[in-house]
Formats: sequence, structure tokens, C-alpha cells
Amino acid sequence: MRSAATGRSTRPSVPRATRGRPPNAVYVQSGGATAVINASAAGVIETARRHRERIGTVFAARYGIGGLLAEDLVDTAAESAAAIAALRERPGSAFGASRAVPPPIEQDRRTYERLVAVFRAHDIRYCFYNGGNGSMDTAWELARVARVLDYPLVSIGIPKTIDNDIVGTHACPGYGSAARYVATSVREIALDLAAMARASTRVVLLEVMGRNTGWLALAAGLAADAACPVPLVLVLPEIPFDTERFLAAVKRRVETHGHCVVVVAEGSTDGSGRRLADRWKLDRSRRAPLGGVAPALGKIIGDRLRYKYQFAVSSYLQRAARHLASRFDVDLAYESGAAAVRYALAGRNGTMPALVQTGPSRFAMRPRSTRGLGDRERPVPRGFLARDGFDLSAAGRRYLAPLVAGEAPVPFSGGVPRVVTLVQRPVTRLLPTFE
Amino acid sequence: MRSAATGRSTRPSVPRATRGRPPNAVYVQSGGATAVINASAAGVIETARRHRERIGTVFAARYGIGGLLAEDLVDTAAESAAAIAALRERPGSAFGASRAVPPPIEQDRRTYERLVAVFRAHDIRYCFYNGGNGSMDTAWELARVARVLDYPLVSIGIPKTIDNDIVGTHACPGYGSAARYVATSVREIALDLAAMARASTRVVLLEVMGRNTGWLALAAGLAADAACPVPLVLVLPEIPFDTERFLAAVKRRVETHGHCVVVVAEGSTDGSGRRLADRWKLDRSRRAPLGGVAPALGKIIGDRLRYKYQFAVSSYLQRAARHLASRFDVDLAYESGAAAVRYALAGRNGTMPALVQTGPSRFAMRPRSTRGLGDRERPVPRGFLARDGFDLSAAGRRYLAPLVAGEAPVPFSGGVPRVVTLVQRPVTRLLPTFE
Repeated sequence: MRSAATGRSTRPSVPRATRGRPPNAVYVQSGGATAVINASAAGVIETARRHRERIGTVFAARYGIGGLLAEDLVDTAAESAAAIAALRERPGSAFGASRAVPPPIEQDRRTYERLVAVFRAHDIRYCFYNGGNGSMDTAWELARVARVLDYPLVSIGIPKTIDNDIVGTHACPGYGSAARYVATSVREIALDLAAMARASTRVVLLEVMGRNTGWLALAAGLAADAACPVPLVLVLPEIPFDTERFLAAVKRRVETHGHCVVVVAEGSTDGSGRRLADRWKLDRSRRAPLGGVAPALGKIIGDRLRYKYQFAVSSYLQRAARHLASRFDVDLAYESGAAAVRYALAGRNGTMPALVQTGPSRFAMRPRSTRGLGDRERPVPRGFLARDGFDLSAAGRRYLAPLVAGEAPVPFSGGVPRVVTLVQRPVTRLLPTFE
Repeated sequence: MRSAATGRSTRPSVPRATRGRPPNAVYVQSGGATAVINASAAGVIETARRHRERIGTVFAARYGIGGLLAEDLVDTAAESAAAIAALRERPGSAFGASRAVPPPIEQDRRTYERLVAVFRAHDIRYCFYNGGNGSMDTAWELARVARVLDYPLVSIGIPKTIDNDIVGTHACPGYGSAARYVATSVREIALDLAAMARASTRVVLLEVMGRNTGWLALAAGLAADAACPVPLVLVLPEIPFDTERFLAAVKRRVETHGHCVVVVAEGSTDGSGRRLADRWKLDRSRRAPLGGVAPALGKIIGDRLRYKYQFAVSSYLQRAARHLASRFDVDLAYESGAAAVRYALAGRNGTMPALVQTGPSRFAMRPRSTRGLGDRERPVPRGFLARDGFDLSAAGRRYLAPLVAGEAPVPFSGGVPRVVTLVQRPVTRLLPTFE
């Protein structure tokens, strides 16, 4: 289509419009959103725009890998500089995401041939894959497969997860903001609870995300400090749940302080590895969410300790709450996107920008191979919890403090956060439909 | 005790320290907290401090009416001006609250005699009762009873409720902030959901407070506007729930937009007046919370429409979220406290400051009798909902817009809101123990 404008001759295997221009890039969002994933998008797009001599257009896949396979791309060149800058303030994955993970090429060659066909059709030679553990694996797989299929692709992973469970990086973009949401919410809840506990509710339970790791439950520990003591019981998947020890911890805190806040990770398990939520589940179908553990633990507290309780389930609230994002995290997400472009231009195929701590509050970004990261998850170190396993330790506090630091306010209008509207200009499809 | 310092002679029935000084006031917090109830406390205390010639000390009852009966008072004169000012930023009831409501004097004369004994012992002639519908009744009852028992008390109510259900005022302090929390959260959730709905979760359900009225569920309607369309299904207690109509509304929105956010008031009922949550409750004891309706409606959606869903329960989160309070609401709460002191000095016994709308975005405060308010609740007018009953109408939007307007940020430190620490200097007890 564009060839009409440029007037060049055409050849089927090379997109006409891109001949003679620098190669293009594609940006892919994958998995559940974070409050700051779009800051990474801004980092990629703004940095690429500063290297127009080497990167032509940054395409974005709509709805993740599915959009890439379907050749459903948008041209981010259509977005104004102001719109790209405003991505820093927008929760949710602005270009759409998907949880799908392609299997290794040995099991599914056709999918990769299609991906390479899409890359070739649009002269895409840089791929930025923004997601969690599985996505880091996919970034590696794309680097490997391109070599196998003899296509000159540089594939870079950009970490993103509120779960903070990617191995090989000090902290994951997305975590600091969700951690700040949990800590702030727990402090606010605790102040409310403390005011009424004498005559009414004694325990509030907050259910947070965390399928296999308790990083978000851990962050609740920040709600308490010397100026504002908050009696807490943290329940993490890393520590097998023991009903009697749990009840004793709750009872001790209520007897001392009059009240207690329980923060429990949705995936917490009993001694046999069975999810606590599963025991009491209303809906056991695959359409139901993972959680439901807060009401279950509430019932145990009510039955056994006779305390009145309330529960909250933070679900999407915690990962979408851009209005509470930490400055550190927004900057980390942005810099991860920016570093990914630098790594791509340096040809550091199959890497991701990893955060390295270089001093008490000094950090740097380093490229790290993403190979094999999909099979691994980083648990909360035991030393980040106090001796009884129900509270944050000093080491845990030292780890968390920089990640949740700094405010990153969003503009409000009409009582709600203002949201940038993207043009999302579709890219003309050049290939036959896939599947 | 203080007599030793002043060196005056003592008489048992009149507290020594208050002789020759202007009479004192007591401030009482009642019922569940709001994000801004302490702004009303600041309004009372700061305004009283500007009238030292007429109001001696402002005492605060610890833990509400229970503290008043137990003569458990603190002397707010011990708090610095900075600490009182910082109450505007502190969620939870800073002096403690209780849900207890004294019965009419004809049923329980002893309680009122005790209250008057406490007033007399501490020369309290102004009482500021800060609470919901029932508390407005109590404020009236105290005014009436003081006359019956021949004690010169001026009793003023200060409205406070996130439920917005007090009759006779345009809006209640506490509501605007909780409404802003719900609207902001729903917009953030919706952006997250929209990004993933193609391949994963189609529906997120948010459970909000509202036992008999749906004011908070209504506020979710603000999440959607022309710049950011959010497909919503609002479920309010005012409209009997009809499963088929509900499922049709959800289905229509998912088929049009790919996803949908359901916001349901915890107290929503079916056609026979039975609470929806009760049908699926894990825990039916009186220690269990009211809610649980979000997972229940999620299950219906999963079973019948086969959509994947997630649910969030905002519980204490929505009423404690001072960090998202609206400027309008903080100011309204403060002005309600300030007006209460002015009414007290004008002898307007048995009134509360009511908000009156005098223009599209102009408001005034007027005294209004609190008599009989405990038996009444203000429902959401049908006209505030769209024709199908599942969405906000233009009239509803006009009503809500000013209430959620304006930012009222709080200072953060270490990733969590900074909290003022009060001295809470206890007042020496002068009476025998009660009960």
C-alpha cells in the first residue's frame, strides 16, 4: 500500500515501505497488568524515537502474542509525544495483553514460522517482550528460534510483575507500586479498625495476590512502624499454614492491642501443599478466581476465637492502583524499557534489564540472560520475616523501603484519574490470516 | 487534683478546676469511621479554640458513648495546633468510636442520669455528637433529656457516614471521599480488565458497602465518561435483584465491549427482600461480616454465561482510604464541625449542620433538627439511575460531580501515609465507676 506513495518496486518477501529505511521494532505486553507496565512502553518508544537512524517504527502488538500472530499491530508513530509521555500514568496494559505462552519450537514449529513471517513482512528486527517469568522465557525462545530459522532478530525481555518473583533481578517493575498499595491500605485499615475494636470488629483480613510467593503480603509489614504500631499477622505461601500457630498469633495480638490485621496471600497452602482457599470455595470451576482465602481464615477466627471480623479482597485493586504507584517503581519500569532498547542496539540478544543493588539506596541496571527463567520463581527469603514467621523483619524492611519510596501522582479530573486516549492506528496486514 | 494547683476550695458536685472558667464541651465519635471524620474533630476543636471566652476545654470521649459513660475522657487542650490541623489527614476515628446507641430515657433513665452526672462533674455544657442516623437521634435525645433532668446542655449532631443515607442534608460528610475511592478504583480496574479480557477474565465484580442504600455503588458510575467508556452493571439495594435481567445486562455489555465491571452493594436483596449474600454465605454467625455478594454473583456469571471472572471486596478499604479523599468532602467535614460549634454558641439545641445546594456548584450550611432521623434512611432516587437500573443517569452524575471534586493529598513517608500521634491526655475521673 505504502509503495504507491514511495513509488518503489515491490517484492513479496520484503515489505515495500521499509526498503531503505532502518529496521522496525515490535513491543509486546504479556500477562496480568501492573500499575506501571505502560511506563515501560513509554521507555521503549521514547528511547527508540531518539534512535531513528537505527530503529524505524515501533509497532505494538494488540493483545500480546495473539496480536503478533494475527498480525494485529498498531503503529506507535501515530501517537503524539504527549500521549506517549502520559503512558507513565495509565494503569492496565495500554496495547492489550494475553497470558498465552508459545511452546518450544520443537513442539510447535508452525507458530514460530508464523512469527518470523510477521517479523519479515514488517521488517521487524527488534522484539521487546514485556512480561513475567514465562515471558522472559519467550524472549529467550524468540532469540534462539530466530537463529534456527535464520532471521536476524534481537529479542529483549522487559520484566513486569506485581509478584516480584522473577529470578535474577533485585526487584521487578510493578512490585514496588503494588507493595505501596498494600502497605498504605493496611495502615489505613488498621487506623479504622483500632477506633472500633473495643466494641466491635477485632480483626480485618486483607487478601492479596501471590500464587506461590508472598512478596505482596510481606509488604504489608511496612504499614507498621515506631510512630504507628499496627498489629499484623502475615500469611505467606512460603510458610506452610498451621492453624494453631496462626490462631495463637492472632490471639496474642488482639489481647495486647485490642485488634489485629491479617494479610494473607491468595495462594497460601496448608502443610500438605493444598491451597487454603480450596477448602471453602464457593465455585470450583476454572472460571472462578484463585482466591477466597480471607473469608475462610475469617471463619476460623470467628469460630475458634469468637472475634468479630471483616474481610477485604484486593484483587485487581492492588495491581491497577496507579494512583498509589511509587516513584521508584515508575522510574524502574521506564528505565527497564529504555535499557531494553539500548541492549537491543548493542545486540544483546536474549537478555533483560536486571536491577542490581550497588549501595544502601543505589541501584544500577545490567543485562542478564533470560534463559530458563520461566521454570523458576523467587520466594521471599525466610530472613525477611520475623522469627515467628508472621511479621516483617528488619532485613525485609531494608529490602522494601527503597522500592516503595516516592510519590508519582496522576492527574485527576471529575474525581477520577484522567486517562490518555491512544490513536492505536492499525498497521495494514500483509500476510494471509493465521489459523 | 487540679485544685492543688489552683489552690481553690472544693465542693464534691462542682469540679474545682472549672469554677470561674467558661463551661466545657465534649466531642463524641460514633459508628464506623470515614476517611474524614477527624476533619470534623479538627473543625470543632479549632473553632472552639477561637472562642475561649465561651468554651473552656474541649474534651473528647474515648471510644464514643462508652467512654462518656465511663468518664473516659481526654483533654484536647494537650494537643498542639499542628496536631489538631493534621487530624484533617488521618483516617479512622482518632478518639475511638462505638456503635452503641442509648435507648430513650423512658426505658433507661439510669444511663442518662449518669451522662448528666459526667457533664456536671466536668462542667460540660456543649456536646458534639459525630455519627450517622442513629447518632443524630442520640444528639436529639441528649438535648431533650437534659431539659427533663434540668441540666443546661446544648447538644449538636455532626453528620458522618460513607452511606450518605441521613435524611435532611444534601450529602453527608464521608460520602464524597468513599465515592471518589469507588469511582477511581473502578476506573483503574476497568483499564486493567480491558487489557486482558480478550483471552482471559471477562468480568470483575467489586463489592462495596451499603446495607440498605446503594449510594456507593452508584458512585462507580463516575468511572465511565466520554473519554473513558467503562461498561458497568451497578447493583443497588433499592432495586430488587432479578437474575435474568442482571445476566442479560452483563451479557450485553460483554458482547459489545468484551468485558464488564459489576459493582454491587453488600446489602442488595432479591425480589423477596432477602439479602443476596445470605444465599451463599460461608459463615452465618453474627461474627461474620454482612457481605460476600460479589463471589456469589460471580458464580452465577460463571455458571450461566461461562465467563471467567474475578472479584474484589473493598470493605474497610473504601471507608479508610483517606489518601483518595475529595477536597469537597474534607472541607464539608471540617465545616460541619465548625458550624456545630457556631450553632452551639447560638443555643441551637438538637440541630445538626445540613448541607443545602444553592446553585449548580454552590452550597451552604443550615441548622436542621435531628429529631427522628434515626428511623429514616435516604434511598438513592430512581432518577439517579439510567432507565435499565444498571447505570448512572445524567441526573445522578450532576448530583455526584461536586461531592467527589478536588484533591486532598496526604503526606507520605516511607511509602505509607504519615499519621499524627495525639497526646490523648487522660482527664482525671471525678465520679464513681459506672456499672
